[in-house]
Amino acid sequence: MSQIQRVAIVGGNHGNELTGVHLVKKFQQYPNLINRSSFETLALLGNLKAIEESKRYIDKDLNRCFTNQGLQNPQLSSYEDTRAKAIQQILQPQNQPFVDAIIDLHSTTANMGLSLILSDTHPFLLRLAAYLSSRSPLVKVCINQQSKESGFLRSLCELGFVIEVGAVAQNVLNAELFEKTEQLIYTILDYFEGCNQGNILQENSQLILYKYIGTIDYPRSERGEIQAMIHPQLQFRDYEPLNPGDPMFLTFEGKNIFYEGASTVYPIFINEAAYYEKGIAMYLTQKQQQVV
Amino acid sequence: MSQIQRVAIVGGNHGNELTGVHLVKKFQQYPNLINRSSFETLALLGNLKAIEESKRYIDKDLNRCFTNQGLQNPQLSSYEDTRAKAIQQILQPQNQPFVDAIIDLHSTTANMGLSLILSDTHPFLLRLAAYLSSRSPLVKVCINQQSKESGFLRSLCELGFVIEVGAVAQNVLNAELFEKTEQLIYTILDYFEGCNQGNILQENSQLILYKYIGTIDYPRSERGEIQAMIHPQLQFRDYEPLNPGDPMFLTFEGKNIFYEGASTVYPIFINEAAYYEKGIAMYLTQKQQQVV
Repeated sequence: MSQIQRVAIVGGNHGNELTGVHLVKKFQQYPNLINRSSFETLALLGNLKAIEESKRYIDKDLNRCFTNQGLQNPQLSSYEDTRAKAIQQILQPQNQPFVDAIIDLHSTTANMGLSLILSDTHPFLLRLAAYLSSRSPLVKVCINQQSKESGFLRSLCELGFVIEVGAVAQNVLNAELFEKTEQLIYTILDYFEGCNQGNILQENSQLILYKYIGTIDYPRSERGEIQAMIHPQLQFRDYEPLNPGDPMFLTFEGKNIFYEGASTVYPIFINEAAYYEKGIAMYLTQKQQQVV
Repeated sequence: MSQIQRVAIVGGNHGNELTGVHLVKKFQQYPNLINRSSFETLALLGNLKAIEESKRYIDKDLNRCFTNQGLQNPQLSSYEDTRAKAIQQILQPQNQPFVDAIIDLHSTTANMGLSLILSDTHPFLLRLAAYLSSRSPLVKVCINQQSKESGFLRSLCELGFVIEVGAVAQNVLNAELFEKTEQLIYTILDYFEGCNQGNILQENSQLILYKYIGTIDYPRSERGEIQAMIHPQLQFRDYEPLNPGDPMFLTFEGKNIFYEGASTVYPIFINEAAYYEKGIAMYLTQKQQQVV
């Protein structure tokens, strides 16, 4: 593995996720906090206009705009399409080295603790994830092997990943999660530094991975209106087993709806506010143990 | 006290507070749930356009538009000014009796349980509040003696009050709080029915009241940017005592800021998402016991 030379930390890819916004503002004010001797670190705000307006986005979700097709299409001129192109220019500048790693900071109303969301099983990221999760039980690791054309910011480089922290409401700062996220970032930067300097001697480690297998929508009427809520027994139970026959939703009339799958799954992003409009009540994952 | 003849239940006065929105939709679908033999009950959605767009409001906060001056001013034509006039026409129709009571349903990211917010110390409302809080420790009672011209929907009638439920994120349904709010509404309607029928024989009751005495803003820079977060020791501690010298905020640099008042207060609406823009980190209240 070659040296990491440039790292980007992005906050406010979604404008109403304040943890990342204020962490990046702090890093911009105190760059020493994220500087390391063997690489350069950029701290960057994502959706500037949405941050200003305390919204997730203005016209469309910025974190779906980083497709090759979209970035190369001059016809696309919504605020987010334009901003995606500008961010790409910063992270992949002409006549300069591209960033080698992207840490994209998000928050969620689901009880996700400190979750790392990886797009693939790159060995370096898996070893980093194993290192971080061995240090804190709050760190969980998810793999979402989406296609190249999903348009996530993190897809701009091989070592791109998301940190999702929660549960925290949109447009709210939770000081405890803020500080835990900050510490996690420093640990990641120190790990990069250690790798660059050849000081990380990582034995084979056990890593627990949660692999996306699909999404579940809320029960809806023909007109698309939701008919049920996340069941109280499932609310805030991200990463816990959901067994066939367990209650999943509670209708507005008070009727239980049960999970009817054939085997145990591990739901995450349960009751994320921004996913109501995407038709997602939760992601289902499979729990796997792996040596990395 | 004369009979209660018409009651209004309003949800979605703020469009991203889903508990009230979906309770009102349920009541519209099943009017028998809120019908009582001695009075009529209306279930009404407040900010229709904001509900559609999953926002608190479109142009301005609807729940500040119910001033006499605003309602009588034909020049005011923002969406919310227009909607306020339409709601007034429904609740105070020409040639028909006005509603006698308004139950205005809100939710909050603060840990407010089931809070009743009253605008004054009307004896009937205080007895109702004493009755409800004696039945559930989750029910708390706040008095905000604002001027007539604050423009709250509840100011349209003498027996107008707010139910604030939380903690729940904006644009999220929490099934447990949904069901508790629903039960509270039925208890209130049954109480009205009992009063109308002369069946409520309420002895003198002890009532604990939290009276608004002021607001505290986040520490801010000269440019108005917040410099600190609610302290982890205060987060979710609504209605608990805050003593002089207790930590109140934590700056982004990790420094504690302490409460410097002269006496113990009881903060509420701690870290409410919608109040960042209003310059309110929390309301301070005094706790009082009263016989009603």
